Amino acid sequence: MPVNPNSPREITAFSWVPQFAQGVVRDLRARWALEEAGLDYRVRLLGQPRPPEYLKEQPFDQVPTYHDDQVRIFESGAIVQYIGEQSEALLPRDPQGRFRAIQWTYAALNSVEPALLNLLLIDIFYAGEEWAKLRRPGAEEFVRLKLKRVSDWLGDKEWLEGRFTIGDLIMITTLRFLRHTDLVAEVPNLAAYLKRGEERPAFRQALSDQLATYAANEPQPEQQGAAA
Amino acid sequence: MPVNPNSPREITAFSWVPQFAQGVVRDLRARWALEEAGLDYRVRLLGQPRPPEYLKEQPFDQVPTYHDDQVRIFESGAIVQYIGEQSEALLPRDPQGRFRAIQWTYAALNSVEPALLNLLLIDIFYAGEEWAKLRRPGAEEFVRLKLKRVSDWLGDKEWLEGRFTIGDLIMITTLRFLRHTDLVAEVPNLAAYLKRGEERPAFRQALSDQLATYAANEPQPEQQGAAA
Repeated sequence: MPVNPNSPREITAFSWVPQFAQGVVRDLRARWALEEAGLDYRVRLLGQPRPPEYLKEQPFDQVPTYHDDQVRIFESGAIVQYIGEQSEALLPRDPQGRFRAIQWTYAALNSVEPALLNLLLIDIFYAGEEWAKLRRPGAEEFVRLKLKRVSDWLGDKEWLEGRFTIGDLIMITTLRFLRHTDLVAEVPNLAAYLKRGEERPAFRQALSDQLATYAANEPQPEQQGAAA
Repeated sequence: MPVNPNSPREITAFSWVPQFAQGVVRDLRARWALEEAGLDYRVRLLGQPRPPEYLKEQPFDQVPTYHDDQVRIFESGAIVQYIGEQSEALLPRDPQGRFRAIQWTYAALNSVEPALLNLLLIDIFYAGEEWAKLRRPGAEEFVRLKLKRVSDWLGDKEWLEGRFTIGDLIMITTLRFLRHTDLVAEVPNLAAYLKRGEERPAFRQALSDQLATYAANEPQPEQQGAAA
């Protein structure tokens, strides 16, 4: 489904981010969900610094936000669930199937993502700091435990609950926070699961659209120098 | 609503936890939601160590899980949302009101809780470690930023979206992870918001029931000695 400037659905995204963040910024989740649901959308791009009034729309100064004729919301988990409610391709309709999917969305965001993001921050933002060097082994061990928990649950299933849902969409985009390491690659069923997700046409389209925006807004060398 | 051994709804909880965790273990969220919704429930208590087969029910070895005649799920966010769908006291029915509440549930669990839990772990579990001493100022600064974001949004409103919802229930139980500090007390509107939540009869009943279980299962001194 193409990005469509006339769509009634709008998400926010950053016009450009540094290389390490390209392909993991959370508007990817909204884009992927919209692609899976077959719904077009337009994108409102935010530069740096964000306008102060954006905090009234997104109190944590993050992307994405989402709005359409019906709702105006933020938080990628809520946005993906909202889109899921419009498409059985993302969210089963029966109560058990529906809440098993929602439960995995929360699990990815609360029981998995914090450990993975912590390691990412240690490796990228705080790499030079003494506490980060001292903490890294324990942080990696905690990530390994989280991956083992997900891997043990997944077993030889294709998706967390048998069929693809919003829970997989959020879990797979969460696992991508470890792409600077071999930690997922070391867990064969999880590596295959991640690959399965990333090979879905909807994911590829979403990623391609996110990356195209960054390519189009790449700062020129002199601008980068001026901003430094 | 009393805990009722014959209720069709069951949650899991720990039979006992150390003092620092009493009153913040996440079954409190499920209990509070059930009290607000006026639904009774029974509790299945888990000792230490948990039976290995519990991982098939809760892949991250945490509490609570929830089941009734319709669903069998884990993750406090998903459980509270499920209970919310059964009671307009917790979750508005119109799409915008509904998803504003759900968005705050995700925000509390993903955009707020990780920073707060990180500080709790530094102060309680890792207090003696060198990295924790070095990291603490930055971790506290990040918590202050998160609290400012929530405080700025809340302003002089009573609840995050005007009326009490599952978003407030999760946010308030999240803020309680800072009770070993003065960080919430230092933000007047947030301190008042926390107090407002904790004074709700449903919260008081839920907390009282959680604490009563721990009191009833308090290890005897000789048992504590034997376990040490």
